[in-house]
Amino acid sequence: MRFDETYSGKVFIKSHPNYEESKAVLYGMPMDWTVSYRPGSRFGPNKIREVSIGLEEYSPYLDRELEDVKFFDAGDIPLPFGNPEKSLMEIETYVHTLLADGKIPMGMGGEHLVSLPVMKAVASKYDDLAIIHFDAHTDLRENYEGEEYSHSTPIRKIADHIGPKNVYSFGIRSGMKEEFEWAKEQGMHLYKFEVLEPLKQVLPTLEGRPVYITIDMDVLDPAHAPGTGTVDAGGITSRELLASIHAIAASGVNVVGFDLVELAPVYDHSDQTANTASKLIREMILGWIK
Amino acid sequence: MRFDETYSGKVFIKSHPNYEESKAVLYGMPMDWTVSYRPGSRFGPNKIREVSIGLEEYSPYLDRELEDVKFFDAGDIPLPFGNPEKSLMEIETYVHTLLADGKIPMGMGGEHLVSLPVMKAVASKYDDLAIIHFDAHTDLRENYEGEEYSHSTPIRKIADHIGPKNVYSFGIRSGMKEEFEWAKEQGMHLYKFEVLEPLKQVLPTLEGRPVYITIDMDVLDPAHAPGTGTVDAGGITSRELLASIHAIAASGVNVVGFDLVELAPVYDHSDQTANTASKLIREMILGWIK
Amino acid sequence: MRFDETYSGKVFIKSHPNYEESKAVLYGMPMDWTVSYRPGSRFGPNKIREVSIGLEEYSPYLDRELEDVKFFDAGDIPLPFGNPEKSLMEIETYVHTLLADGKIPMGMGGEHLVSLPVMKAVASKYDDLAIIHFDAHTDLRENYEGEEYSHSTPIRKIADHIGPKNVYSFGIRSGMKEEFEWAKEQGMHLYKFEVLEPLKQVLPTLEGRPVYITIDMDVLDPAHAPGTGTVDAGGITSRELLASIHAIAASGVNVVGFDLVELAPVYDHSDQTANTASKLIREMILGWIK
Amino acid sequence: MRFDETYSGKVFIKSHPNYEESKAVLYGMPMDWTVSYRPGSRFGPNKIREVSIGLEEYSPYLDRELEDVKFFDAGDIPLPFGNPEKSLMEIETYVHTLLADGKIPMGMGGEHLVSLPVMKAVASKYDDLAIIHFDAHTDLRENYEGEEYSHSTPIRKIADHIGPKNVYSFGIRSGMKEEFEWAKEQGMHLYKFEVLEPLKQVLPTLEGRPVYITIDMDVLDPAHAPGTGTVDAGGITSRELLASIHAIAASGVNVVGFDLVELAPVYDHSDQTANTASKLIREMILGWIK
Amino acid sequence: MRFDETYSGKVFIKSHPNYEESKAVLYGMPMDWTVSYRPGSRFGPNKIREVSIGLEEYSPYLDRELEDVKFFDAGDIPLPFGNPEKSLMEIETYVHTLLADGKIPMGMGGEHLVSLPVMKAVASKYDDLAIIHFDAHTDLRENYEGEEYSHSTPIRKIADHIGPKNVYSFGIRSGMKEEFEWAKEQGMHLYKFEVLEPLKQVLPTLEGRPVYITIDMDVLDPAHAPGTGTVDAGGITSRELLASIHAIAASGVNVVGFDLVELAPVYDHSDQTANTASKLIREMILGWIK
Amino acid sequence: MRFDETYSGKVFIKSHPNYEESKAVLYGMPMDWTVSYRPGSRFGPNKIREVSIGLEEYSPYLDRELEDVKFFDAGDIPLPFGNPEKSLMEIETYVHTLLADGKIPMGMGGEHLVSLPVMKAVASKYDDLAIIHFDAHTDLRENYEGEEYSHSTPIRKIADHIGPKNVYSFGIRSGMKEEFEWAKEQGMHLYKFEVLEPLKQVLPTLEGRPVYITIDMDVLDPAHAPGTGTVDAGGITSRELLASIHAIAASGVNVVGFDLVELAPVYDHSDQTANTASKLIREMILGWIK
Repeated sequence: MRFDETYSGKVFIKSHPNYEESKAVLYGMPMDWTVSYRPGSRFGPNKIREVSIGLEEYSPYLDRELEDVKFFDAGDIPLPFGNPEKSLMEIETYVHTLLADGKIPMGMGGEHLVSLPVMKAVASKYDDLAIIHFDAHTDLRENYEGEEYSHSTPIRKIADHIGPKNVYSFGIRSGMKEEFEWAKEQGMHLYKFEVLEPLKQVLPTLEGRPVYITIDMDVLDPAHAPGTGTVDAGGITSRELLASIHAIAASGVNVVGFDLVELAPVYDHSDQTANTASKLIREMILGWIK
Repeated sequence: MRFDETYSGKVFIKSHPNYEESKAVLYGMPMDWTVSYRPGSRFGPNKIREVSIGLEEYSPYLDRELEDVKFFDAGDIPLPFGNPEKSLMEIETYVHTLLADGKIPMGMGGEHLVSLPVMKAVASKYDDLAIIHFDAHTDLRENYEGEEYSHSTPIRKIADHIGPKNVYSFGIRSGMKEEFEWAKEQGMHLYKFEVLEPLKQVLPTLEGRPVYITIDMDVLDPAHAPGTGTVDAGGITSRELLASIHAIAASGVNVVGFDLVELAPVYDHSDQTANTASKLIREMILGWIK
Repeated sequence: MRFDETYSGKVFIKSHPNYEESKAVLYGMPMDWTVSYRPGSRFGPNKIREVSIGLEEYSPYLDRELEDVKFFDAGDIPLPFGNPEKSLMEIETYVHTLLADGKIPMGMGGEHLVSLPVMKAVASKYDDLAIIHFDAHTDLRENYEGEEYSHSTPIRKIADHIGPKNVYSFGIRSGMKEEFEWAKEQGMHLYKFEVLEPLKQVLPTLEGRPVYITIDMDVLDPAHAPGTGTVDAGGITSRELLASIHAIAASGVNVVGFDLVELAPVYDHSDQTANTASKLIREMILGWIK
Repeated sequence: MRFDETYSGKVFIKSHPNYEESKAVLYGMPMDWTVSYRPGSRFGPNKIREVSIGLEEYSPYLDRELEDVKFFDAGDIPLPFGNPEKSLMEIETYVHTLLADGKIPMGMGGEHLVSLPVMKAVASKYDDLAIIHFDAHTDLRENYEGEEYSHSTPIRKIADHIGPKNVYSFGIRSGMKEEFEWAKEQGMHLYKFEVLEPLKQVLPTLEGRPVYITIDMDVLDPAHAPGTGTVDAGGITSRELLASIHAIAASGVNVVGFDLVELAPVYDHSDQTANTASKLIREMILGWIK
Repeated sequence: MRFDETYSGKVFIKSHPNYEESKAVLYGMPMDWTVSYRPGSRFGPNKIREVSIGLEEYSPYLDRELEDVKFFDAGDIPLPFGNPEKSLMEIETYVHTLLADGKIPMGMGGEHLVSLPVMKAVASKYDDLAIIHFDAHTDLRENYEGEEYSHSTPIRKIADHIGPKNVYSFGIRSGMKEEFEWAKEQGMHLYKFEVLEPLKQVLPTLEGRPVYITIDMDVLDPAHAPGTGTVDAGGITSRELLASIHAIAASGVNVVGFDLVELAPVYDHSDQTANTASKLIREMILGWIK
Repeated sequence: MRFDETYSGKVFIKSHPNYEESKAVLYGMPMDWTVSYRPGSRFGPNKIREVSIGLEEYSPYLDRELEDVKFFDAGDIPLPFGNPEKSLMEIETYVHTLLADGKIPMGMGGEHLVSLPVMKAVASKYDDLAIIHFDAHTDLRENYEGEEYSHSTPIRKIADHIGPKNVYSFGIRSGMKEEFEWAKEQGMHLYKFEVLEPLKQVLPTLEGRPVYITIDMDVLDPAHAPGTGTVDAGGITSRELLASIHAIAASGVNVVGFDLVELAPVYDHSDQTANTASKLIREMILGWIK
């Protein structure tokens, strides 16, 4: 299950060498070809791996070390440049295999659209799935200038698929009027601007349920995540996002998969955002893979 | 009233094509020739327009869309390079015409000195004018190394003009001792370090009064606005500045004009500060142009 | 024929306001979704326009001024993000219309694949068409990882279309062994490493023929064009490229269209490459539009 | 006592020209040769001096001006490139001389290891010395890959020297498990994540005691200090660090020396972090040199 | 004659501490307020000094060392921000004093307009003065948008002053048609595109004459000098400019003063252009101060 | 013989997976702790590997493909931070082992001092060894501020070791007077400024002899290699350096090892220099490993 590419040798710090023995699998989805604004997130996964060597293996937040968790870094899924449909199919197929093997999928984007096939695959395994979604943007469009599969549509598509009432969005501060109205009408749980406070209220209601979590780096304020495609002022701090990860870790939800998307290294001076993304992934692995 | 330059075609998103039908007019004042430290704010207005295409037209904060407000983007006022006095005169003349036409002036700097002729023109129309001023710096010098018209003097000059008691400064964290003392002696309302809390106390006292608002981007912390001429640690977040704009929108003051100055794109990696400036302008248009 | 978008107002310096009266039409093809390495050329056309305001209108090389040539800047062709096939079709349709109206097409990329539909459209009008191609790369692959329409295939596709003997490539210094062999076997005119010398030998043989010219910015050495997707050491200077443009201008070929592609502003510190691209376009307009 | 180098002419704003009359001495320790990750802090001291010219001389926080404090800027201590042991010895010797002359040492790094010889020298003068340490990292390793003198060991070495109970670390969010355990077992005062709150509790217990304070810039969040060797998300704001400096100034501790380390200009876009470092030093001088 | 400013301590490597004993004087003219395009050259002189510490003191081209030449670095002339006329007057006054003291003036810009008052002062001392001018731009406008003193006019003004036949421009590749025509009509020696070859032909004709030399960094190709206000493709290499300096050194002309202008550090990634400027100054000092 | 580090997985394109079967071995020497100016070359080797994925495997210059040469990428030699002597010893030991195994050593720096232990090891195997050295700097100092092992001394040390007459330096344009004199007196072959022409004269005289070749990236002009520690104007183009590599390939010398040093990625905007370094290594492998 490791992709055999010349350049996939780089791995996340302390990843386990053996797929079979691992409980969770980390993989990159280096696709950015439907973004309308600033491309570049295709280089996100490898950059996260590269800077992970600067991380400590121990989390003083969770009092746990990376070698306590067996996870395998499978490299990047090879995706056909400029062909979104085929790319999405290959991601979905890959995640189906992971799930069939009993692995917890941990994805790194790439643009946010890559989360859609993952969530679909996960939803096919877990009937009662809920989605927790951290983002600056609603991502609730039905289509973008006619294209159905776009970086602006993934949450809408998954909400249509599993029912809007099972989707919980946090930190949203940008979108079309119609998107906010649709969310309201459909009973989707969309929390504007705030993250940690509404999350703490929601988590008890999800106790015991399988939950997939998708984090768009731009939920962070541009001060904390300049290296992303679409920055939007007024976001949360990396401190609040860390606390949100820890709140989920301390709750009774059953994390069955997650991803972190939209790191775009070319806009990221001196790897500030990449280092943050890398630390977030360490905390998610240590907090959510029990 | 649109300036006829080859390059003035770029306009702020959703600006109205017709001057006569518009209630408010957006214009650039691309002057930076009196700054002592880092020039470059001359490119601020066009950069704000350029990145505005990445904005949503809808504000989830105010539940309002840009097409609900008729505003005209007039381009940049042509200013003679290296001639501050003539530049200030041309700005003042221009704003007088806007006011005579019943338009609300919305300016984009340029260095902070460009606000002075605008405020003078506005003060000639509104007897009871109050100034709300967000800034890291006092800008209260009488002169700067002998030059009376400098980026360090605009608030002093307008305070002398309309009376210090009618000037309210927020977020100030840098200046000469004499400037702070002068403000105190003259009864100017200068709030050090803090913005939102004192603003909430001041706004009820200004109810019904005509108010001109000038925002220097450096009131934001360097983390939130690196792309400005003179960064100064210890500032507020973009979240607090957005909340301040919304507090003014919700108050009973009569906003008769405003500007946002000191965006300097060359110091702004990946347009972080420009995107923030652009969003701030959207919120001011949606919140303040009733 | 000008695209009606909010942000298309920005135009190349001294472009003519009227389509009908213009002899040539400048347009952007902001597509970069099939590139395998570094995306970003979608922002090339608008950046070229933006920096064109720094250009003089007069060429001391050609002793001619921009106002001596009537050309219309039509803005960017709207292209569906992430959909290469549809994008190529829309470009081809657009250029057919230009040609039907008797205009000379002058394109700005975007990735090199955008040249393919343009060349096809031009070839359908001119039976005897020859292609002059400046590039670091062969671009002669049949497909790239299975995808037929890729940034690595445009010259192969057009060679297949009009016959390899009608294609003249200069400055080539990178490609697969098979590509060089194919060129040789097929009688394509592929000149390795050198540009000006072989061009001077070729031009007399093309006298009177209709010629389409496509310039990939990476034919320049990385020192002269860092702001492109795929830099490759050992290229020519901007001086040699200017001399090549002037050699074509002085020859007897009939330039029936041209493009300049692969400027990627995000890799271009301080607009060095953009300024060069902008000057090259001025020289092509002044030298080739008689 | 000023180092006689060609380039040491650049001095911190308003430093006093005379060593003998000065109460405190500012000096640079431009060493970065034991860092394992990103070098470059050797250029920190001169960059701080350079940008200090943009500072106001007056602190509105402390209502005091730089000319009220006589401090001498001695330039950078000349250190042998690539020789850590000799470098540390020269620093220690230098600080011994300062202390013998009755001066308060104020150091600028350089990597954090440079603080060790300074603290040792200070400890030899003050029996009852306590260390206040602001940092993202524990710096409590016994050695780093076998090397005892490393950027990861200075706090451990000084704790061993003066007793762990006399060391107070704030804001720590990164380290090996063993380091946190060692701190706990030894009774060191290590406060995780938080700074201002625990500091306010600690300060009264240190009243009257001689205190040396060492600030690693990376205690700040990467949003506030991108220009450092090892960024780590989840840190404090520059506002909180300023408040901490002011809390110490208002307390009854006896500041007998301090330093600020790990500014690395090459990772610092547009001097954001350098400007912050420079302001922090102004506040420390004004608040701590009575 | 050294300007007494806080930050003027930084000096060019191996400058002599004593004004009286020095044969030549180096000074900065940090003015950039009339430039129409990209400001920032005000920081040029100090950046040149800063990076000079990386230079060797010996020139293998000229077999001479800096300590063989007594030159004094006087720091930057204090200039009133935003006031070009007063700035030019102060420069002229300063250079008159230098000449009266028998010193050879060596200036660092700043925008090119700063050369005008220097050349005027020098012309008042030497009847038979010739100007050698290296530049991409003609700088021959009578005025720029009505302003007579602009970065586009200095060569015109000095040509009017000393007679166009005494001005020799090399490397010119940009300007208005009228400027080239004016030069031709007036008998000015304007060499387009080329530098070293025409220079070698001109030098013998100037043997024994007093010559002032002004170098605009943008005579270099953008590949060799990206860090300048107005880059223009098709320029010469740094190698050719070095050879030109050495050709002048080897000729019989009498260099009575010179300057190097238009280094703009903010556009200069990693100090590439600054290092080149610094080396050029070393070579001019070693080659031209006999 | 592959170093077992978490991050050493990244390998040069088309390197062979098996040490035993390989003829040549590529290894990194990530040391930069003795440089006096700008550190950062420790990250050179991994950056070269990373960008190698953008290379074609085929050289149109040499008509050869990478898979025709069996070479093993061993990763980076683990070196103790801040300890030059121990680092040099470990490099020497490592290369002795390579040579004992019959492998051709191909090193990537790191600072230039890393070449010294390699050259020593190679000299112990080949009695008649000659050194070919491409560099901007002499590197002939006996010591640097007292330190014998410094980035300024490696060529002197090896010249002392194998005899100055066996050392051939090309492109030298910077050094102390004493260094140039020493070279002359000792009969070392030092060619100032020029590379290709003197190389073509020297190569026939070395026919059949074992030759070690060391390339400092700064032999290139800063336009062609901005990403290095010490840039120096007036260097050669990447085209000339490629031609020099090909001249050696075509000559009768016996290349028994080589290295390329001083790539410093942090000063290298958009990987321009790294891409060039990577291509140079491909050409050396294809041209020199027969």
